[in-house]
Amino acid sequence: MDRIPILKLGKALLVTIQVDMHDQLATALEEDLTNMIVSTGARGVLIDISALDIVDSFIGRMLDNIAAVSRILDADTVVVGMRPAVAITLVELGLSLGGVKTALDVDRGMALISQRTSFGHTDADDDGDEEDAGD
Amino acid sequence: MDRIPILKLGKALLVTIQVDMHDQLATALEEDLTNMIVSTGARGVLIDISALDIVDSFIGRMLDNIAAVSRILDADTVVVGMRPAVAITLVELGLSLGGVKTALDVDRGMALISQRTSFGHTDADDDGDEEDAGD
Repeated sequence: MDRIPILKLGKALLVTIQVDMHDQLATALEEDLTNMIVSTGARGVLIDISALDIVDSFIGRMLDNIAAVSRILDADTVVVGMRPAVAITLVELGLSLGGVKTALDVDRGMALISQRTSFGHTDADDDGDEEDAGD
Repeated sequence: MDRIPILKLGKALLVTIQVDMHDQLATALEEDLTNMIVSTGARGVLIDISALDIVDSFIGRMLDNIAAVSRILDADTVVVGMRPAVAITLVELGLSLGGVKTALDVDRGMALISQRTSFGHTDADDDGDEEDAGD
């Protein structure tokens, strides 16, 4: 497989990381996500890492990259499903994932994204309600 | 990897098939899904196969199995993201996925599931509205 599927979920995009990431796959994912954010007008990116036993500096950098690009395109990045052991390892490695928001599961991640945008079943696009509420 | 992650999404469960399925993985997925339906009270199962180039009889049978077990546990199974070539191959192979509902993408699949249950942001459980609307 050379592409990780990106699912559109309302105004968010959902990616589930299930396989070992390598350079090419990570680059392809970053490109695909960037294109999808623009083409769908997504306001958030959810990245599920519940299948990952370990998050090394490579994955950490990829997550940071995705978050940085998404932010420029006005989309929040939320990492969901992190295992306890992964969280401990990240801290021990000194990787704090500073640019990335986290949530325990997809539902909470969606709630996080919907906090700043009018996400949901109403299709109200950009109606100027950008409150910057405690970002 | 020996488990495919299952994401809870409101009252639905979402599975993204990204890797080659083999016997053990398929069995584990069926078991995990069954347990998750019961433990979360999910009313629907969304299976995304947009990453699959080909769906053979093994995958077809797995999807049928999941649908059959889910139905007994009162959950709909919706396969989403099927590629055009996969659809053509399925018909040519005589695999019509009779027991499985399909939708073009996750959003439409969620809509399909929400048609028969009070899915959404209200947490109204079983309030007796089982209309059997043209199932």
